Amino acid sequence: MTVFFLGVDGGGSNTRARLEDAKGNLLGVGLAGPSNLVRGIPAAKAAIMDATSAALQQASLSSSQLSSIHACIGVAGANVDSYASQLNAWQHPFHSLQVTTDLHVALVGSHGGGEGAVIITGTGFCGGISLNGDYCEVGGHGLLMGDGGSGALLGLRAVRHTLETLDGVVPTSDLAQAVCKKLGCNTAAEMVSASIEQPPVYFAALAPTVFEWAKLEDETALEIVHKAARFTANYARLLLNKRPQRFSVIGGIAESLLPYLPEDLQKQCAPALCTPVEGAVLLARRKHQSFAANM
Amino acid sequence: MTVFFLGVDGGGSNTRARLEDAKGNLLGVGLAGPSNLVRGIPAAKAAIMDATSAALQQASLSSSQLSSIHACIGVAGANVDSYASQLNAWQHPFHSLQVTTDLHVALVGSHGGGEGAVIITGTGFCGGISLNGDYCEVGGHGLLMGDGGSGALLGLRAVRHTLETLDGVVPTSDLAQAVCKKLGCNTAAEMVSASIEQPPVYFAALAPTVFEWAKLEDETALEIVHKAARFTANYARLLLNKRPQRFSVIGGIAESLLPYLPEDLQKQCAPALCTPVEGAVLLARRKHQSFAANM
Repeated sequence: MTVFFLGVDGGGSNTRARLEDAKGNLLGVGLAGPSNLVRGIPAAKAAIMDATSAALQQASLSSSQLSSIHACIGVAGANVDSYASQLNAWQHPFHSLQVTTDLHVALVGSHGGGEGAVIITGTGFCGGISLNGDYCEVGGHGLLMGDGGSGALLGLRAVRHTLETLDGVVPTSDLAQAVCKKLGCNTAAEMVSASIEQPPVYFAALAPTVFEWAKLEDETALEIVHKAARFTANYARLLLNKRPQRFSVIGGIAESLLPYLPEDLQKQCAPALCTPVEGAVLLARRKHQSFAANM
Repeated sequence: MTVFFLGVDGGGSNTRARLEDAKGNLLGVGLAGPSNLVRGIPAAKAAIMDATSAALQQASLSSSQLSSIHACIGVAGANVDSYASQLNAWQHPFHSLQVTTDLHVALVGSHGGGEGAVIITGTGFCGGISLNGDYCEVGGHGLLMGDGGSGALLGLRAVRHTLETLDGVVPTSDLAQAVCKKLGCNTAAEMVSASIEQPPVYFAALAPTVFEWAKLEDETALEIVHKAARFTANYARLLLNKRPQRFSVIGGIAESLLPYLPEDLQKQCAPALCTPVEGAVLLARRKHQSFAANM
């Protein structure tokens, strides 16, 4: 029987799928919108299936082949038990389904299937470590209660600063003017109305503006970036104190944030060996093999 | 014809109603749950009517008297145009209805109907000033994007700190242990699950704990309180620079926060002459009089 391996990496900004055959040949990839479980299970399932369909299509396979697929889905929010069990209860179309966190597949990918530690800083922020067969996660508390080193919090802090300049309680800045331009708002009331119901990815879209102005030494932008770097450094030291075999910092803002980390931490960062979605395929393959070995 | 005047002060924590007769005699008061428009117009209307019914009952009046009432409702969220127009479209049971913000009625109340400036720091945070007939509001951006001097942000910062101690990235503290006890949580995952969908009033309930430990010189509690005081001082200076006739700081955490403001600001604070709900009655009365004068 032909078998395929599907890896899915689902985050707050988008969902990636990767389909390989039994020999490890890449057959197709797919991209869809966010699948963070916190923002709704039906939407997450839809994004996962959209990305999967795109990968199948690129592989010139029909949806009837879904039943030959061993899938591993690593998705944001699966660290919350109630969300993970909802996804696990899914009447999915695959041969087998393994649900884990986006952090877990990123960790496995970063170290090419071996052990190590990782920090992901993209829309959100979290860290994880696998050591002697144990696996543990830290952070990932969301934009309101944590995520201090995330792109969303960088952007949110820029919005807060801009609102204070629009109120007139702090002097205006290049950063504040850039935020007004980017969001198309000229008053505090307009900015609050535009931003009040937005998900983290809306604020994360402002992170590049913050880094841009930090490079140009805008004082507030630098302060915001340094705050995020201190938060990230605390989590990096926590993980490194456990002496992992390897350590990587990955995610949408990792490359921009790294130069602001203390030098000793920068030196201990190793590049990721594979992407998170490749990590998901590795896990799908590994589970199938252990299952086959136990037959 | 008998006329009555009703004032309503609706905030993120509760809603107060006050009913007076034409001569200014207090007939009854009522208390109900939160009526912040941001958390839903139907719930806000229900809380407003609950508080009103309680005031009517205390006055030994029946609901048939609602049509004799001139009402002024000052409610949180009415600074957002879309929310205010939804409440203005209400097929209300009163003789007349005036909708304004909770800040406006607090401002009018604080200075006994005269002009002045006010900062409200309770569950949320905002400031307002009336000067030469003009009226202007600042702050009030909500817990995510502002409210830096509010009880909710004090509590939220305590939760963030506690999560970092539970993750093990910063040392534990008396404050963190008090937060764990108060929320009944022992792990970061428990605390995130318990707090993730909560409204600002949930976090504001932790503010007394923060002040308590600040008094006992817990370092983190002091840092959190000083941050809120700096934010409040910025808004206080903005308002005082406009030379209002009087200036008050009111709201649930005002008394606890005041001692942490710079001394020159403390000296310029005058006590509130009337409560916000009395301010609402004043506005109801004033509108009716100007209407009657124009007949």
